Amino acid sequence: MKFASDNGSGVAPEIMSALADANDGSTPGYGADEYTRDACNRLAEVFEHDVAAFLVTTGTAANALNLAAITHPHGAVFVHERAHVHTDECGAPEFFMHGAKLLPLAGEHGKLTPAAIEQGLEGFAQGVVHHPQAQAISLSQVTESGTVYSVSEIEALSVLAKKHSLRVHMDGARFANALVSLGCSPAEMTWKAGVDVLSFGATKNGAMGVEAVIVFDEGIAADLPFMCKRAGQLMSKGRFLGAQMAAYLKGGLWLDMAAHANGMAPLLAAGIEKLPGARLRHPVQANQVFAVLPKPAHKALIAAGAAYYPWEREPDGIAVRLVTSFCTSNEEVEEFLSIAGGAL
Amino acid sequence: MKFASDNGSGVAPEIMSALADANDGSTPGYGADEYTRDACNRLAEVFEHDVAAFLVTTGTAANALNLAAITHPHGAVFVHERAHVHTDECGAPEFFMHGAKLLPLAGEHGKLTPAAIEQGLEGFAQGVVHHPQAQAISLSQVTESGTVYSVSEIEALSVLAKKHSLRVHMDGARFANALVSLGCSPAEMTWKAGVDVLSFGATKNGAMGVEAVIVFDEGIAADLPFMCKRAGQLMSKGRFLGAQMAAYLKGGLWLDMAAHANGMAPLLAAGIEKLPGARLRHPVQANQVFAVLPKPAHKALIAAGAAYYPWEREPDGIAVRLVTSFCTSNEEVEEFLSIAGGAL
Amino acid sequence: MKFASDNGSGVAPEIMSALADANDGSTPGYGADEYTRDACNRLAEVFEHDVAAFLVTTGTAANALNLAAITHPHGAVFVHERAHVHTDECGAPEFFMHGAKLLPLAGEHGKLTPAAIEQGLEGFAQGVVHHPQAQAISLSQVTESGTVYSVSEIEALSVLAKKHSLRVHMDGARFANALVSLGCSPAEMTWKAGVDVLSFGATKNGAMGVEAVIVFDEGIAADLPFMCKRAGQLMSKGRFLGAQMAAYLKGGLWLDMAAHANGMAPLLAAGIEKLPGARLRHPVQANQVFAVLPKPAHKALIAAGAAYYPWEREPDGIAVRLVTSFCTSNEEVEEFLSIAGGAL
Amino acid sequence: MKFASDNGSGVAPEIMSALADANDGSTPGYGADEYTRDACNRLAEVFEHDVAAFLVTTGTAANALNLAAITHPHGAVFVHERAHVHTDECGAPEFFMHGAKLLPLAGEHGKLTPAAIEQGLEGFAQGVVHHPQAQAISLSQVTESGTVYSVSEIEALSVLAKKHSLRVHMDGARFANALVSLGCSPAEMTWKAGVDVLSFGATKNGAMGVEAVIVFDEGIAADLPFMCKRAGQLMSKGRFLGAQMAAYLKGGLWLDMAAHANGMAPLLAAGIEKLPGARLRHPVQANQVFAVLPKPAHKALIAAGAAYYPWEREPDGIAVRLVTSFCTSNEEVEEFLSIAGGAL
Repeated sequence: MKFASDNGSGVAPEIMSALADANDGSTPGYGADEYTRDACNRLAEVFEHDVAAFLVTTGTAANALNLAAITHPHGAVFVHERAHVHTDECGAPEFFMHGAKLLPLAGEHGKLTPAAIEQGLEGFAQGVVHHPQAQAISLSQVTESGTVYSVSEIEALSVLAKKHSLRVHMDGARFANALVSLGCSPAEMTWKAGVDVLSFGATKNGAMGVEAVIVFDEGIAADLPFMCKRAGQLMSKGRFLGAQMAAYLKGGLWLDMAAHANGMAPLLAAGIEKLPGARLRHPVQANQVFAVLPKPAHKALIAAGAAYYPWEREPDGIAVRLVTSFCTSNEEVEEFLSIAGGAL
Repeated sequence: MKFASDNGSGVAPEIMSALADANDGSTPGYGADEYTRDACNRLAEVFEHDVAAFLVTTGTAANALNLAAITHPHGAVFVHERAHVHTDECGAPEFFMHGAKLLPLAGEHGKLTPAAIEQGLEGFAQGVVHHPQAQAISLSQVTESGTVYSVSEIEALSVLAKKHSLRVHMDGARFANALVSLGCSPAEMTWKAGVDVLSFGATKNGAMGVEAVIVFDEGIAADLPFMCKRAGQLMSKGRFLGAQMAAYLKGGLWLDMAAHANGMAPLLAAGIEKLPGARLRHPVQANQVFAVLPKPAHKALIAAGAAYYPWEREPDGIAVRLVTSFCTSNEEVEEFLSIAGGAL
Repeated sequence: MKFASDNGSGVAPEIMSALADANDGSTPGYGADEYTRDACNRLAEVFEHDVAAFLVTTGTAANALNLAAITHPHGAVFVHERAHVHTDECGAPEFFMHGAKLLPLAGEHGKLTPAAIEQGLEGFAQGVVHHPQAQAISLSQVTESGTVYSVSEIEALSVLAKKHSLRVHMDGARFANALVSLGCSPAEMTWKAGVDVLSFGATKNGAMGVEAVIVFDEGIAADLPFMCKRAGQLMSKGRFLGAQMAAYLKGGLWLDMAAHANGMAPLLAAGIEKLPGARLRHPVQANQVFAVLPKPAHKALIAAGAAYYPWEREPDGIAVRLVTSFCTSNEEVEEFLSIAGGAL
Repeated sequence: MKFASDNGSGVAPEIMSALADANDGSTPGYGADEYTRDACNRLAEVFEHDVAAFLVTTGTAANALNLAAITHPHGAVFVHERAHVHTDECGAPEFFMHGAKLLPLAGEHGKLTPAAIEQGLEGFAQGVVHHPQAQAISLSQVTESGTVYSVSEIEALSVLAKKHSLRVHMDGARFANALVSLGCSPAEMTWKAGVDVLSFGATKNGAMGVEAVIVFDEGIAADLPFMCKRAGQLMSKGRFLGAQMAAYLKGGLWLDMAAHANGMAPLLAAGIEKLPGARLRHPVQANQVFAVLPKPAHKALIAAGAAYYPWEREPDGIAVRLVTSFCTSNEEVEEFLSIAGGAL
């Protein structure tokens, strides 16, 4: 009953095996190897677009590098007030952006809206020297509330962004889960919908530790090799990042794993909704369930060794986040529901 | 009818004359002169406390230096969502703090409240490595809505701050106006109420361009001389900052000027309240009037050459900010009210 | 006998009087006033070129802003190992450049040479991701050894710079002294010789506290208004910077003052050379004299109240720097020489 | 004949196998797992000292974090002019230190000396506000010239450092190679000799990608957890860093691998010295050989597929760096020497 986070899970066997295969002989360091080249080629293929891709070791680094690539130090980025970049990266984006600001906005179920951004722009008039200068929007796909922006919602944000010369960043720490949820193509969910830069996560979905900084516009990419190195994100034995990413993409492994994780969440959600006194806090659209559990259920679950995070506060019980992963089993879900139900 | 800002006014004659007097002979540079020493002694006397004081040329620099002195780069500072440091300094605090965050909070009439800060702390749990670490509160006295914190309101914020190991910064760009409004002593409004560092403004109240970074706790002051120099804020001919500040404080000039400015605002406010369709947006407690003017009054005033800033949006007219200064005259106020009234 | 620094001198009467004149009535704040406009127009005229000019309060700020305008945070700037930006600004350039590096090079009499830069480039290969990326050269005119680059020396550095896509910054804290020394036009010493950005000093040569960030290439200027504000360098009552700079340039006042200062230095130097056991350390080409004084002369001078800085170490006496200014008198020079001579 | 860098080699089988073992079941994320705990315990044991250890993914990050932990943004660090942190990390230390300076010093065979640092201090007087403030020394053990500081050389630097309140950082990217070379204990080469913080490398010596930021003084460690997170260096699935480091240390694997690498270098060096026209540029004390090869030998080697880096310039041939690793074979060395010899 491990629902604390998808990063509690280990590495997919296919990826472990790719790492072992890559450990053969000598290769050039710092990403100048064939495994990294293979990974980048696969990314271009997956996105049906020339991309500049930089493999890094954490989602925090991917987000911070992407935001730094599209923002001046005197700039500002609109984010949802619950965005991971704002609340859960200990200020990494501001560090990498050399002090540019994140401007938090409210929005239902973790989503930014064009209206919220338009209102935000009123307080920070562009071109007026006194105000931090809005230069980008950052949206999380999957959001921090477990919801997924539709393609048309992304497009609406991008249209507004273009109108105000804002760049669009997508934090895709759970990109695969969102993609499987929408059933569209990677291209449709990103550059075709106006996304300029993407943090393409693999770690939470079965890799050991690799994320890609993906840039769809060459103009943005020029300084990134230097920025990655300067941020301590140019791996010495780069082949082991390349090998992970290539194996992740090969034969659609990434989509299969996300489909599995996404398939478990509705089972969990459906069972929770049936518990007396329990309720869902957000629509379940990917591999996360945000719910309120009655206290006795929570106590029984913790006693039985279930792992998950408490989340904000609710008056009517314990608000929790439950995350399913590529290796969550039906049995885990059933055991969870049975223990919770038994306590009520 | 110049109500755009108190910085539209010139320099008090006493201060101009002190500058001329200081232009005599050779003195050591970089603040090692007798004028600067005199200014610092006067500040200590005014505050009834040993203070470390650093004279700088802008309020932006004073605020940014103070915040940098009390915050780690991975830290965060609670501010009102309309705070000058957040909206009107083009990111200077984040620059000087090397990327530490300002966390904006809502609050009536421009004021932070203990409740808002407590709620803010919930989203950024202290000691948890993922979250930006709250390390300070910054309050503006006078606020950006023209209101003034009472001494007990400041104390309540400080008590909460101490409880959570937060430092307290006061942005006193209009310190004199707040002080005259409360009728208390400088000590009562600052260190006795728990304020750790103060941006002590003089420019808006009749100086040419001088503000003091004032630190009440020696532990905070150690790095500030280097920080000022590194920020380009150590004036070569420092005597001309010292001479301004000394003259500003001498014989209570600063209080007289603030009392004059504060005296003009209620006249303006009272007249506006009598205009049909006009209203005040915030209590008038210092030298600023925030009001909604009917469109015809606004048009007539602009046509007659009145100067003031539009401010946010209101549905029932033109929201404006009017600022009085040490040299605002009764005649200006009367002319303003007569033109406005005549148009309605 | 005040030879410690030209910033020990006060303000030229013409400039004091311009400040008093500017203190009339209300003007818009933040540099949107007629005095600042006048100053900028005069700068364009003086340089025979459209310039973007930003008035700031210290030379440190002017240098740091200029360097930040031409360097990426992962970049590097070649400087002389004795350059003021490297040794005497407490790291301000690195702060404003967000960590870009200054790479110190040796060179006789305070001057950078093309050969030294070419050698420097070998250690920091451009385009290779591991190395800080050289992006600019910063030269001081007058140098920190009191010497002056000839126009052809500047041109030679610029030619090399262009070849390697390096920008050229000139630290002109003593620009007027260099100009008078060379007898060329401001245009010839700057943009015609390949200089991209200039820190144009006025403070050391009779102003109260104003320097101009001058950009000869519009492409560089776009972000500077925001950078100035964010650095706390946008003065609230900007008219008092504008008035200083306009008066400084008006009627060639700046050139007259520099000519006076430059005229005093050779008198001092000639006298020193005649002292037994004394010698000059660098050619005297502007308003600074670097000399080695025999100990007894130094002792007698200090006892008599002479002010000047010791400078590095020399085996054969006390190495000192003597600076003359717009208000140094013949009498001061004679007194200095007579006391020194009397002690030997 | 792969002598380009020790990072061209793959991962030791023992470490690959530890990664596979660690991929079992669910663990907490972000380093709160048993593997990381095991690694930290082993580090404390190896160093015979309580240490705060933070596992990161690159040597660049380890160095930059360590330097940031001991330096204020207005500070400065003395380094050798060939130090990796100065020339080969694209400015990462300055980025993490928020602009603090590296001050390069000359020194034979890649080593800093007390005399060079004392001279350096003269140009940057401590406590004087104009000068960047020296706060640390960073030394590389093994140096960038392949030499190794003796324990007494380290002690001499530390004694001087303590005298001037400087902290001591050791860049131990090749720590194991230096240790094996000296034959002393890890404690003797670090904290007992006055080292405050250590970048403990494992990647170049057989790990996949893990380095430890090691702090011997608790006072320095307090902010590091936040700094690591904020730098994108807190790995989501931290167990895979812990597992690498634990396996690296277990049963002395790290020392065996370093001993092997170190054993290959003298064979290579001895052979090169016998080649007509070839010579060594630095003493060979660990696993690197810096040599000058005659052009024909170089050509023949390149043609035969040998890999190594050219290094600086020498008049009498091709200066190269050759690095041996834990998997360099006798055959590779012999082939190299035979091809080189055959061409002369």
